[in-house]
Amino acid sequence: MTTSSPLLPADFLDFLAKNADRFERELMDWLRIASVSSDSSAKKNVHAAAEWVKQKFADAGLMTESIATDGFPLIYAETPLPEARDGKKTPVALVYGHYDVQPPEPLELWDSPPFEPVIRDGKIYARGATDDKGQVLTHVLAVTQWLASGRTLPIQIKFLIEGEEEVGSGNLEKYLPRLADKLACDVVAVSDSSQYAPNRPAITCGLRGIATYELFVDGPSHDLHSGSFGGAVMNPAMALCHLLSSMLDKDGKIAIDGFYDDVLPIPDIERDAWKQLGSDDAEFARSVGANALAGEPGFTTDERRWGRPSLDINGLTSGHQGEGVKTVLPAKASAKFSCRLVPGQHPERVTRLIDEHLQRHCPTGVRIELKPDHGAAAMLADATSPYTIAAADAVESAFGVPPVMIREGGSIPILARFQEVLGCDVLLLGWGQNDDAAHSPNEKFSVADFHRGIRASAALWQAIGKP
Amino acid sequence: MTTSSPLLPADFLDFLAKNADRFERELMDWLRIASVSSDSSAKKNVHAAAEWVKQKFADAGLMTESIATDGFPLIYAETPLPEARDGKKTPVALVYGHYDVQPPEPLELWDSPPFEPVIRDGKIYARGATDDKGQVLTHVLAVTQWLASGRTLPIQIKFLIEGEEEVGSGNLEKYLPRLADKLACDVVAVSDSSQYAPNRPAITCGLRGIATYELFVDGPSHDLHSGSFGGAVMNPAMALCHLLSSMLDKDGKIAIDGFYDDVLPIPDIERDAWKQLGSDDAEFARSVGANALAGEPGFTTDERRWGRPSLDINGLTSGHQGEGVKTVLPAKASAKFSCRLVPGQHPERVTRLIDEHLQRHCPTGVRIELKPDHGAAAMLADATSPYTIAAADAVESAFGVPPVMIREGGSIPILARFQEVLGCDVLLLGWGQNDDAAHSPNEKFSVADFHRGIRASAALWQAIGKP
Repeated sequence: MTTSSPLLPADFLDFLAKNADRFERELMDWLRIASVSSDSSAKKNVHAAAEWVKQKFADAGLMTESIATDGFPLIYAETPLPEARDGKKTPVALVYGHYDVQPPEPLELWDSPPFEPVIRDGKIYARGATDDKGQVLTHVLAVTQWLASGRTLPIQIKFLIEGEEEVGSGNLEKYLPRLADKLACDVVAVSDSSQYAPNRPAITCGLRGIATYELFVDGPSHDLHSGSFGGAVMNPAMALCHLLSSMLDKDGKIAIDGFYDDVLPIPDIERDAWKQLGSDDAEFARSVGANALAGEPGFTTDERRWGRPSLDINGLTSGHQGEGVKTVLPAKASAKFSCRLVPGQHPERVTRLIDEHLQRHCPTGVRIELKPDHGAAAMLADATSPYTIAAADAVESAFGVPPVMIREGGSIPILARFQEVLGCDVLLLGWGQNDDAAHSPNEKFSVADFHRGIRASAALWQAIGKP
Repeated sequence: MTTSSPLLPADFLDFLAKNADRFERELMDWLRIASVSSDSSAKKNVHAAAEWVKQKFADAGLMTESIATDGFPLIYAETPLPEARDGKKTPVALVYGHYDVQPPEPLELWDSPPFEPVIRDGKIYARGATDDKGQVLTHVLAVTQWLASGRTLPIQIKFLIEGEEEVGSGNLEKYLPRLADKLACDVVAVSDSSQYAPNRPAITCGLRGIATYELFVDGPSHDLHSGSFGGAVMNPAMALCHLLSSMLDKDGKIAIDGFYDDVLPIPDIERDAWKQLGSDDAEFARSVGANALAGEPGFTTDERRWGRPSLDINGLTSGHQGEGVKTVLPAKASAKFSCRLVPGQHPERVTRLIDEHLQRHCPTGVRIELKPDHGAAAMLADATSPYTIAAADAVESAFGVPPVMIREGGSIPILARFQEVLGCDVLLLGWGQNDDAAHSPNEKFSVADFHRGIRASAALWQAIGKP
């Protein structure tokens, strides 16, 4: 029942085990709050999700506050700063996470309602289960329960839980400089990613950046009869397909002039480490339900996901989408698309290159508009810092195996800014799984990973605080 | 107030003028019935629209019946067969039209509700105003009001009004052979097209054929996080764009192997006649609100619309279409598209060529399915038949100018079948305008064209019946 651990006392592990059900109930309470930050009709929920976690900190006696922004509040909390031991500066860690979630659509593909969490086969199903409420809560519980057990922490731990991560963290980025003193720390710890595989925990030393866009194509002033006008008037939906298709070669290479100019090659040491992971393309394809993988030639699947940029269409809209036939030449068409960026690339330059490409390829007879949404550079962590070494011990003590060193293809835009503004290290400790369906229907989080995460977090603070 | 006419007595023209308001009210009654044949939830309305016109015939004392099919009924009516004069066979004309309409979406673009007809600036606005209830009613009124004025017709007139024209006339096509005797006629008259321009009435001697499709692209079993999987898994929305883009060159030429093999060239006599029409591309572009026209090189706009095949995307659907950003790699994408065909082309062969093209171009990592809906060959009428000559007189008498001889780019799939099965000529007499927005928001029909159409129809029967 109880995992022995060199970093945590057995009676605390017993305490965690005895209260496991309560921790799961608390997570499900938080998951019931539909805090979709991109949905303007869900504002009240997003604020409620913020209040929920603030209350957790307050209940545990942490100094906590809600920092108002132009958008959703930043929930801040901190533990007392321990006295310095023999003149050595006491480490300060900042836990970063988010209480907002992705939209749940398409709803019809959920086996159970996205905001009515249920446990099936040892997994908690709900939007936000793994991204990011479930993973944030492991740290909240590790700290609050440690204090509740009457113990003190060897280091100071600060929390910053925001509500706009899924829409680009624009306000946190804006407020970060004036919060630099309050957030001052040696390392930022984040759990918003995945293990490499079940029971193969990972420390993620890099994330891809992102740049998101919406492209609008406008043709005639109204939908036209495709019989009377087809062949004489440019079809905006076809113009959109030409434009999107022109940005990515059939073989998966991005075809935008200059797009790869700033891309830094993947260091050999990482390439080799990733090859050692022994990932299996056929198995990977099976795990996502695709009949085969595809992508930029000359790179392995992990290299394409972690170390190479990508361009994906996120949504297409035009003309008649209802039942039956409607032979219309649509007045307009639009697409949402996004790029994942790697070290060396700058979102602003990528936006300029895409805009120039689209203008250059714009067909006669339509007007186009590119609307950039948010962008962020890629992030690289220091795989050799004492915090990474401490984290490796903590993870091994909770999971029973040492973590592998990987990168992730996703983006946490704010982390590069933390490094810049706070001058801190970054620790990315993913408790989730690749098949947790973050951003998809039936998002889930393994109950076992949830509890392992709580133990790993508690062990981490001890490992960092070791004399 | 009354247009004099060599074919119609002045007192009948007075009668029509005096009852103009009533005719408009009757049309608006019919337009209030939302008979959308492609919408399975509108079945009751479609049947109601059929009953409405059947009642008109019955009220006027015509022999009428509702012919049941596997779908919506065929409304049939006929006037008595006049006695043969000095051994000459009495001509029989069949008026064909439809009581079903296109879907009204997108609703938000209508200035007034699509099924609450209103008259603004001398035009009746409603779905079905010009396509086809307004134009059908000109013939119904011409015949019923002629009889109501106590006169007899010099020829026999039959009516066949169907309810599935907007979804391909599948059932009429199926039932046509067994109805051949009942529908036997010398000429079929149809008003489901447009004048060449305001006050430039036209006789349409050709229509394009059609082939409609839906293309489905399936990738992973569920939407994926574009960060964790982008670059490693084929994006179905991008695969769809590649496939659609591959079917049409940037310059507007269809790029499907063999697509043009069967296309018959446009006869020089028609090419020359069309050039005489003096159409103006800049003016045409303005009329549809496009900043320029575009299409297959080497052909004029009228040639591209009337004498060359076209391929149009009618709708695109994939991924996140709601508010805000959702960086998802969609599990699937789909498109509705259709081709307009010209004389020489066979829908079945076109479908085979498209399917082969798509299979050949299908990207790795996705599965595709092409679902053909309905298809029909193009139609050519005999521009030199006595019926065409009589129609030219009738149109000139009602519109005050002789009609021009054109083709139309739209399709009336059943007409080629009428020619085949009934061995009759075809008369396409469009009372509408190109900017009537058939199949679009704010569809309309000019009140003046409505009344001119009634007079032209009444004159037509007299012209055909002239000794």
